Amino acid sequence: MPELELVTLPNGVRIALDPMPTLHTTAVGVWQRVGARWEKPEENGVAHLFEHMAFKGAGGRDARQFAEAIEAVGGVMNAATSYERTSYYARVLKEDAAYALDLIADTLLDPHWAPDDLEKEKGVVAQERGEAFDQPDDRVFELHQQALFPDQALGRPILGVDETLAPVSVQSLIDFRAAHMAPERVIVSVAGAFDRPAVLETITKRFGDLPGRAMIPPAPAKPAAGISIEERSLEQTHLVLTWAGPAAADETMYAARLMAEIYGGGMSSRLFQEVRETRGLVYAVDAYLDTMEDCGRLGVYAGCAAKNAKTVALIAADLLMGLAKDGPTAAELQRAKAVAGAQLMMGAEAPLGRAEARASQLFLRDRLIPFDEIRAKVDAVTAEQVAAAAARALNGPVCAAAIGPKSGLAAASAFHARFAS
Amino acid sequence: MPELELVTLPNGVRIALDPMPTLHTTAVGVWQRVGARWEKPEENGVAHLFEHMAFKGAGGRDARQFAEAIEAVGGVMNAATSYERTSYYARVLKEDAAYALDLIADTLLDPHWAPDDLEKEKGVVAQERGEAFDQPDDRVFELHQQALFPDQALGRPILGVDETLAPVSVQSLIDFRAAHMAPERVIVSVAGAFDRPAVLETITKRFGDLPGRAMIPPAPAKPAAGISIEERSLEQTHLVLTWAGPAAADETMYAARLMAEIYGGGMSSRLFQEVRETRGLVYAVDAYLDTMEDCGRLGVYAGCAAKNAKTVALIAADLLMGLAKDGPTAAELQRAKAVAGAQLMMGAEAPLGRAEARASQLFLRDRLIPFDEIRAKVDAVTAEQVAAAAARALNGPVCAAAIGPKSGLAAASAFHARFAS
Repeated sequence: MPELELVTLPNGVRIALDPMPTLHTTAVGVWQRVGARWEKPEENGVAHLFEHMAFKGAGGRDARQFAEAIEAVGGVMNAATSYERTSYYARVLKEDAAYALDLIADTLLDPHWAPDDLEKEKGVVAQERGEAFDQPDDRVFELHQQALFPDQALGRPILGVDETLAPVSVQSLIDFRAAHMAPERVIVSVAGAFDRPAVLETITKRFGDLPGRAMIPPAPAKPAAGISIEERSLEQTHLVLTWAGPAAADETMYAARLMAEIYGGGMSSRLFQEVRETRGLVYAVDAYLDTMEDCGRLGVYAGCAAKNAKTVALIAADLLMGLAKDGPTAAELQRAKAVAGAQLMMGAEAPLGRAEARASQLFLRDRLIPFDEIRAKVDAVTAEQVAAAAARALNGPVCAAAIGPKSGLAAASAFHARFAS
Repeated sequence: MPELELVTLPNGVRIALDPMPTLHTTAVGVWQRVGARWEKPEENGVAHLFEHMAFKGAGGRDARQFAEAIEAVGGVMNAATSYERTSYYARVLKEDAAYALDLIADTLLDPHWAPDDLEKEKGVVAQERGEAFDQPDDRVFELHQQALFPDQALGRPILGVDETLAPVSVQSLIDFRAAHMAPERVIVSVAGAFDRPAVLETITKRFGDLPGRAMIPPAPAKPAAGISIEERSLEQTHLVLTWAGPAAADETMYAARLMAEIYGGGMSSRLFQEVRETRGLVYAVDAYLDTMEDCGRLGVYAGCAAKNAKTVALIAADLLMGLAKDGPTAAELQRAKAVAGAQLMMGAEAPLGRAEARASQLFLRDRLIPFDEIRAKVDAVTAEQVAAAAARALNGPVCAAAIGPKSGLAAASAFHARFAS
């Protein structure tokens, strides 16, 4: 059986190869350690705009020719920009893995853009921003992010704003790329069925002579307590409520994940049972752990009638305090471990999720972590560690955002006040 | 190698077993031929409410105990109601396949509900409806559905309305179940890694003595030309534009799927290239084929600035007329076949999608269809058949819905008018 393998090129580009030999397809991608977090205030939106432009001209192909090249082999290619990462990835048949990697390399290493394509793409991004603004459950997360990271790149919208996007030129994109295309910040990840020599040859040929560049560390995250509200004529009030969480590579992350599951992750969680099953106040309610390089947050999203928003927010607060005080029951801890273990197995069967997980492991820990090791760490978590994870969450800044009818917006300040006393 | 297998119980319940022996997990589910399409006007929403109640009391467990039972083995269970089907499914580890099927059987065969749980669940559904109403890209599809199927169950919202949900009692749900729980309308589908004897034993034990019932055929679908608009203060205008399409089991469905792909499916499609890449008018634009038992539609969804809505709608109309007139190029047809073939392979690697596809095959064609046979049918489609599929789409009723600022809503009537001349 071929094995999970890390190959590091002499220039520092890392390659994760994760063979799934019983499949007929593969996921390939390049994950780059760059995103909105590295933007100066006047550059806001440039990382995302760069990613959009990647497909507009690369390797001698225009946008149409590029789309035709990937679809000629039945492939699907996409890209995404977050605060800390930008990814370009494709799903293809086994025999097309090296071909797809070559196309992705073109977007990153051989871009060529016409100024009017850039102006048109600014129009597309403006539509993307309009769409996100119109979705209350997207917009409430943006409001929350602004409140949690005031006056920081992490608090500015990934999609940018008109004022910063309007002046962006082709040269601005080239400069942004030049600053951030460092070999240590590039990970190529392949999971599924593939021809190892062909894949390695293509990656080495395309990424092997990427020159070194000075590393640019992002400014440290400074999450703050805050409140952000927006009145809108809606049926529902949408809430995002957060506390502190561990950074992504923190060893307490395993306990924090189980804590989030017990608190509000699944159907049997305390939050779901109380606000949906027992009280019927919400349709959607969910707790989540969002981790970054140097900080994290435990959060709750809920959508409910305005008249119930305050009740939902206070229940969310009280249930977390209860978990910190009393810890989980043995049955809760067993279930959370079973869920984490089963999700690990299910996730391991999906090539794209697996390729992305491998890239993440390399960014955060500089090594590939066998699933058994993760499983063992999850299984070793104790009830005390779960309670401690909840207590640590409560120790950090509390941040709340709400969008909806005026009468529901006081939920955000009521939530905040619960922790001031 | 274990093989794909259809087992029919003496009472008519059909079982699809699709072994994927290299996996460690499985997807199990029951697909029932029932949904909003079977509701009388005064019952609107009852199929969906029934599905919600399934988890509120089954096999002697209340909602909390039921959630705990599935999460104790790390499983994830969910359910969904459409116009023609209701499904209850779970993802679990290999060794828990029979256990999960037993839990699903409890929801369908051994429900027990407290009247107050029903009232609480009506509150949850009210929140679900509020959430869908607030999302413009959900709401525009609901508006479109109303216009396409006037005065029919197919045109009423799956989630129901206050007036029809308020009087629903526990007895109404029991009666609805009694009317529709016919063995011929139940398919149990299992895809992934599982112990065949254990799974078959559980299914036989639970579903083998389901008594026969008179079949209730739904009223034939009568899609109509129509327009539905809703003014809302939004950044974008959201459009749904449709023509006719084949029914799900129609042999022209393969040609229609390739036609939809070439017209507006992928990044290299005519619609995406024209309205996004060439003109920069939209972020999201997509053509889709939606098939039902006795009708279908080719549709386009787009979100754009109000001032561009009419342009987008007319381009969508003209591009379809062009495809019907001139047919696809050889390269377009080759790409569409490559995409369809690769998607078939990728889909085949995901257990839940595979279990659902098997259930669909049994409902529509009463047999399990090997992937090679589907692939051969796709590959046999000619350019003439694609052009004919586009021409047939244009021959049926044209229906348009728009939501957004007042100035963009005229796009719906302009689209309609394009086909009146």
